[in-house]
Amino acid sequence: MIETDILIIGAGPTGLFAVFEAGLLKLKCHIIDGLPQPGGQLTELYPKKPIFDIPGFPSVLAGDLVDNLMEQIKQFQPGFTLNEKAETIDKLEDGTFIVTTDKGTQHHAKAVAIAGGLGSFEPRKPILKDLEFYEQEDKGVEYFVKDPEKFRNKKVVISGGGDSALDWSIFLANVASEVTLVHRRNEFRGALDSVEKVQELKQAGKIRLITPAEVVGFKGSERIESVDIEINGARMNVETDYFIPLFGLTPKLGAIANWGLEIEKNAIKVNNALDYQTNIEGIYAIGDINTYPGKLKLILCGFHEATLMCQSVFNKLNPGKKYVLKYTTVSGVDGFDGTRKEAEKAVVKSID
Amino acid sequence: MIETDILIIGAGPTGLFAVFEAGLLKLKCHIIDGLPQPGGQLTELYPKKPIFDIPGFPSVLAGDLVDNLMEQIKQFQPGFTLNEKAETIDKLEDGTFIVTTDKGTQHHAKAVAIAGGLGSFEPRKPILKDLEFYEQEDKGVEYFVKDPEKFRNKKVVISGGGDSALDWSIFLANVASEVTLVHRRNEFRGALDSVEKVQELKQAGKIRLITPAEVVGFKGSERIESVDIEINGARMNVETDYFIPLFGLTPKLGAIANWGLEIEKNAIKVNNALDYQTNIEGIYAIGDINTYPGKLKLILCGFHEATLMCQSVFNKLNPGKKYVLKYTTVSGVDGFDGTRKEAEKAVVKSID
Ligand SMILES: Cc1cc2nc3c(=O)[nH]c(=O)nc-3n(C[C@H](O)[C@H](O)[C@H](O)COP(=O)(O)OP(=O)(O)OC[C@H]3O[C@@H](n4cnc5c(N)ncnc54)[C@H](O)[C@@H]3O)c2cc1C
Ligand SMILES: Cc1cc2nc3c(=O)[nH]c(=O)nc-3n(C[C@H](O)[C@H](O)[C@H](O)COP(=O)(O)OP(=O)(O)OC[C@H]3O[C@@H](n4cnc5c(N)ncnc54)[C@H](O)[C@@H]3O)c2cc1C
Repeated sequence: MIETDILIIGAGPTGLFAVFEAGLLKLKCHIIDGLPQPGGQLTELYPKKPIFDIPGFPSVLAGDLVDNLMEQIKQFQPGFTLNEKAETIDKLEDGTFIVTTDKGTQHHAKAVAIAGGLGSFEPRKPILKDLEFYEQEDKGVEYFVKDPEKFRNKKVVISGGGDSALDWSIFLANVASEVTLVHRRNEFRGALDSVEKVQELKQAGKIRLITPAEVVGFKGSERIESVDIEINGARMNVETDYFIPLFGLTPKLGAIANWGLEIEKNAIKVNNALDYQTNIEGIYAIGDINTYPGKLKLILCGFHEATLMCQSVFNKLNPGKKYVLKYTTVSGVDGFDGTRKEAEKAVVKSID
Repeated sequence: MIETDILIIGAGPTGLFAVFEAGLLKLKCHIIDGLPQPGGQLTELYPKKPIFDIPGFPSVLAGDLVDNLMEQIKQFQPGFTLNEKAETIDKLEDGTFIVTTDKGTQHHAKAVAIAGGLGSFEPRKPILKDLEFYEQEDKGVEYFVKDPEKFRNKKVVISGGGDSALDWSIFLANVASEVTLVHRRNEFRGALDSVEKVQELKQAGKIRLITPAEVVGFKGSERIESVDIEINGARMNVETDYFIPLFGLTPKLGAIANWGLEIEKNAIKVNNALDYQTNIEGIYAIGDINTYPGKLKLILCGFHEATLMCQSVFNKLNPGKKYVLKYTTVSGVDGFDGTRKEAEKAVVKSID
């Protein structure tokens, strides 16, 4: 059982910054995320795009912002349970919580902050007969490339026309024994250099391109052996070990919708007049996942909400203790790892 | 009469960032500040100190954060009325406002955002007979060094033991004909290199140091001619053209306290459940100057409050118009100066 003060669900910018504010108050955090890496939408959807409305950054790449946040919270040594989705929550008699993931990992916490953004990311799936069979573990259909080594010297069919399909085709061209890219149009939509690179690899015979076409069926008894592809009304069959449809991700609130929280427009209602707490005491919702009158789904708003949430948890865990706000500039920052950041001190010195 | 959409009182980080969020909504801003430069507490009190809790900055010097904010808002061409304090406010029948400064400058705006921090900065004054006479314009007592040229080839007595006293003594040593630094202790408190520099300049005969001592009186009929200094119980008289006491600044809510706003603990009460509006419709209070349950006087909170305030003004000025949030990353940022910031576009391109 993982023990922590605040369990944070969601490693997007809001959840990450919460670790810092909690740390200033000497509260430890652990973060669960269904994705394999931290950063939420920024890392998963637009890591190389600039954001212009983060205060103090005239422009910052989404991926760099996440790196900066990771660096900023490092001193407070957050724990991470990645690649797992928070699935159930139990409130114990003493007011603490146990949160269990889809893989059975249990977390015990004094407070829970749901920073789940638009929900956990689910791949958009093609509609295909027998898909449910082939998407079982190791039957040949994969929606993420978690470990590229899995595809070494294997035959791979990728489907899709955006950046993910282009980028993974390029990457796997040097790993897999054969890469086939299938897209229902002739035009791809992505970064210019990715499109050009695929063009090159096609000419070099390292990527086979089939357009305008669609995968329409599977063959194989134990696992996938080939896919049927429809191209201009005709059919062809392509031998393959893996089929990777990359049609983008859609966020789903998922299991959290069944936790007894008040939900409105796919978001969790919170008390924005105080501390972003939900209708269940001890459970907070911060960032994109919450809603209240005037709510804006912006990164900078999540930062503020995370900060007030941490204060509320601190007050709850330290009843009667009068909290005095300390400026980081004046008091410095003491990490849980023994490091200390501080401003250069003024000297007190006589002149003679 | 200066015309604008949102008149912002206070050029601290909160007021500055409001210009950006307003700009995204095509609202123009004008800022009044009593200080000669933008940046509020950050520029006036700790420009060279690092801040550790700005989201995305593991560490940033206060002065650099202000520079970054100025760069970020540049596209939206805010107007500035500096060195003047907002003194009176009048609400016109059409719901717009006229704000007048202590120097008589008038501003006409559709909404007013008070981002006045802890109030306008007033110098801490020594208690001295006839101070009121000598602090009149050009009688010899100055609390700020606004224009160093004023002191060229003049005799100057500076009083104080902190960074301002040290730094201005150093600076004026090469401008004034004579610099005398008076402090009531032998020890100074400031940056090490400032203390060392004063030590050097003293040894080079460019600064005269009198410690532990205090200025206790003035001589001069038309204007200041000399000051009396008490040193170890004895008295001496030092000829001078100017006396500059630098004992720090204290913020005072000042005239704003008489505008009919609900005040609590020296701060303005706002509706934090919605838009940080005060009890007077159309007047908002954001940043350090406002108060509500759970309020934290932090820079990052001011950014969020500024953002929600701008949305509220937008909705008020565009009744019935449905607002759709646009991400800067997706829609880019169009400045009032004709410039445009935008993410590189994806290409749509066929591969053959
Ligand atoms: C293309 C694009 C451009 C954008 N541009 C801007 C912009 O310019 N400015 C701006 O302010 N905002 C922008 N946004 C919005 C911004 O990305 C979001 O406001 C921000 O990501 C919200 O952060 P968050 O931490 O609240 O949630 P998210 O970033 O969505 O992170 C939530 C995390 O929670 C995880 N999660 C959810 N449910 C579970 C569960 N049950 N178990 C485990 N993990 C779970 C998800 O996997 C995800 O990683 C943009 C968004 C997009 C898509
Ligand atoms: C030494 C020190 C260290 C700090 N460290 C941190 C930190 O690490 N992290 C953090 O988040 N915060 C820190 N703070 C607090 C931070 O500086 C404030 O939260 C921030 O400055 C508030 O910004 P603001 O824009 O609301 O107000 P301010 O920065 O106070 O700016 C208000 C401006 O309004 C002007 N003004 C007021 N009244 C009038 C009027 N009637 N007419 C014209 N102008 C007027 C003032 O001249 C001033 O320039 C620190 C503060 C100090 C003093």
